[in-house]
Amino acid sequence: MSFELIKSDKKTNGRVGNLVTSHGVIETPVFMPVGTIGNVKAISHKDLTDIVNAQIILSNTYHLYLRPGIDVISKAGGIHKFMGWERPVLTDSGGYQVYSLAKKRKLTKDGAWFQSHIDGSKHFFSPENVIDIQRKIGADIIMAFDECTHYPCEYKYAKDSMGLTHSWLNRCYKQFNNNSAPYYNYDQFLFPIVQGSTYKDLRKESALEVASYDSEGYAIGGLSVGEPHDIMYEMTDIVCSILPKTKPRYLMGVGTPANLLECISLGVDMFDCVMPTRNARNGMLFTEKGIINILNEKWKYDYSEIDKNGNSYVDKNYSKAYLRHLFVSKEILGPMIATIHNLAFYVSLINKAREHIIEGDFSEWKTKISKQLSSRI
Amino acid sequence: MSFELIKSDKKTNGRVGNLVTSHGVIETPVFMPVGTIGNVKAISHKDLTDIVNAQIILSNTYHLYLRPGIDVISKAGGIHKFMGWERPVLTDSGGYQVYSLAKKRKLTKDGAWFQSHIDGSKHFFSPENVIDIQRKIGADIIMAFDECTHYPCEYKYAKDSMGLTHSWLNRCYKQFNNNSAPYYNYDQFLFPIVQGSTYKDLRKESALEVASYDSEGYAIGGLSVGEPHDIMYEMTDIVCSILPKTKPRYLMGVGTPANLLECISLGVDMFDCVMPTRNARNGMLFTEKGIINILNEKWKYDYSEIDKNGNSYVDKNYSKAYLRHLFVSKEILGPMIATIHNLAFYVSLINKAREHIIEGDFSEWKTKISKQLSSRI
Repeated sequence: MSFELIKSDKKTNGRVGNLVTSHGVIETPVFMPVGTIGNVKAISHKDLTDIVNAQIILSNTYHLYLRPGIDVISKAGGIHKFMGWERPVLTDSGGYQVYSLAKKRKLTKDGAWFQSHIDGSKHFFSPENVIDIQRKIGADIIMAFDECTHYPCEYKYAKDSMGLTHSWLNRCYKQFNNNSAPYYNYDQFLFPIVQGSTYKDLRKESALEVASYDSEGYAIGGLSVGEPHDIMYEMTDIVCSILPKTKPRYLMGVGTPANLLECISLGVDMFDCVMPTRNARNGMLFTEKGIINILNEKWKYDYSEIDKNGNSYVDKNYSKAYLRHLFVSKEILGPMIATIHNLAFYVSLINKAREHIIEGDFSEWKTKISKQLSSRI
Repeated sequence: MSFELIKSDKKTNGRVGNLVTSHGVIETPVFMPVGTIGNVKAISHKDLTDIVNAQIILSNTYHLYLRPGIDVISKAGGIHKFMGWERPVLTDSGGYQVYSLAKKRKLTKDGAWFQSHIDGSKHFFSPENVIDIQRKIGADIIMAFDECTHYPCEYKYAKDSMGLTHSWLNRCYKQFNNNSAPYYNYDQFLFPIVQGSTYKDLRKESALEVASYDSEGYAIGGLSVGEPHDIMYEMTDIVCSILPKTKPRYLMGVGTPANLLECISLGVDMFDCVMPTRNARNGMLFTEKGIINILNEKWKYDYSEIDKNGNSYVDKNYSKAYLRHLFVSKEILGPMIATIHNLAFYVSLINKAREHIIEGDFSEWKTKISKQLSSRI
């Protein structure tokens, strides 16, 4: 894996690069659709590549471990073969799901006991076995095991938790480096994760600790968990100023279209978020002019195309009235159309950011477009 | 509308033809996917045309009338424009749904009172208003309002019901012919429906009555409602022997792949059925070698392609183990893949029947393939 920095914006910390993986080159900044259990919800792989042009997807270790189980994936020859997906994949470490989804979590210095949200069965994740699990899943990029703190989080808890995450990180690297041969016939790369809640000194300390590892990329975790946007930006800015400029920075779980543009300007290169897909399934559409709630009565007789500025075929082929009808009637096609639209919008927005950084007018464009993005249509 | 009979099979009553509509030519025999409320469940229009190659879809008057309502469709300029679907559409008359779905149905000689299955609201369908409703929906082919009898059905009830259907048919034609100008800028055509339950004499009487109308096509209703296949075939055979040879025959609501081939051999040209789509959503896949229940534990580690003889891309791109995982995890992509597979299989099977009739070996091919179609893999 290698990262080539192609251009840095002059007015902001925005950057454009190419991240080379065993399954293809990823142009950054990049948005990674979330493929929780080995598929992005309500969209086919074909539409994900041919229409959305997703360069990489994220999948969740916690979910894959529970279903279908690691043996099913490893016997298939890894996640790419199991899914029938040839482009890059990133897996998270399960830390976030243990925090957000599992029942009866219990942390020890060795790892996390948790109960499956599906059947209540008991499991244990440690830095070591999470690395082993991710090697068997076979994603191109795998993540260190961390604790994701709540917001708000008391200083003492945040500091102790950060210490735990750092000690786990050390163990993750030991485990990862103990197995130098690829599990499959291609390389995988481990990204460490900065924590530290919303405390500047902790974020600095964590960024310095994480940056001390020689890695092909670095992640920022524990944000977008309920804190105000300004605080998220402040923490991201601090961390980006410390992480190596020559390597990609991945801001986990962020966010709205406006969040993405702001964080690109702070120097973030990679994003993932369930928002475009989850909100699509609830009838919320993101557009350059603002947010549409397609279930709104006002669209009942609106036969105009879904998004006249949209870049995917669904935007032109279906009307708002028709899409509303599908959602009102709870037809699967409603979420299918909205998912294509939202993902295509996210990918297109980030591609435009890339182009504007290359052209040198990113800052002006961002200021202009950001005002509209969060308005309600 | 016109129907050109291209070839008649020598050993069976199978036929090949072209049915010309305002929205394109339909090659018969043809299978019409069911698009209940103005969309075929779990598949995009794009995949329906580009991958499945559906020539025409069926939509349900009862459903469209309740949701989104006829005014929403007529203000859009008809069902094609509302849906964003350029190929032909057929609407049924609502008779079957009033019989199978509505609450508290009450029949009178004038029509049917019923309560919506959605909100319990009261409505009335008459031969006259069902014709008006279908004109406003704007399908290329519209159906007469009939009563669909249960199975088993006592002779007296079946005879009286048939009489009612015939009197309604007369009123449908009067209403239809009273409005000679197209509601939109294209022609629509009304098909009458043969009833008579499972009684040979009633079927004959009804077929003769229905055939006395000068129509561009004729339908056979009230079958595939629980009666044994042999009785369905017997009734279909009797009716087909009476209906005009120069016009297409549409057997409503039928059926399994083997049913389709058998009924093609009896002279049926058009079919619709929810089976490929509904069963797909439950994880049942139709193939030339038999039926697969993809939820079966035996597929857990089976990484072979879904259907090596299949003709759609999903058959090659996804494995049985992966598709099973999607169904076990209740992911929308499971039904999406299965729907494409099943519809593509139905359309391909009927296209093969057409080719074999043209080549002259339909009977031998049918005998050979039918044995496998209903077996369990």
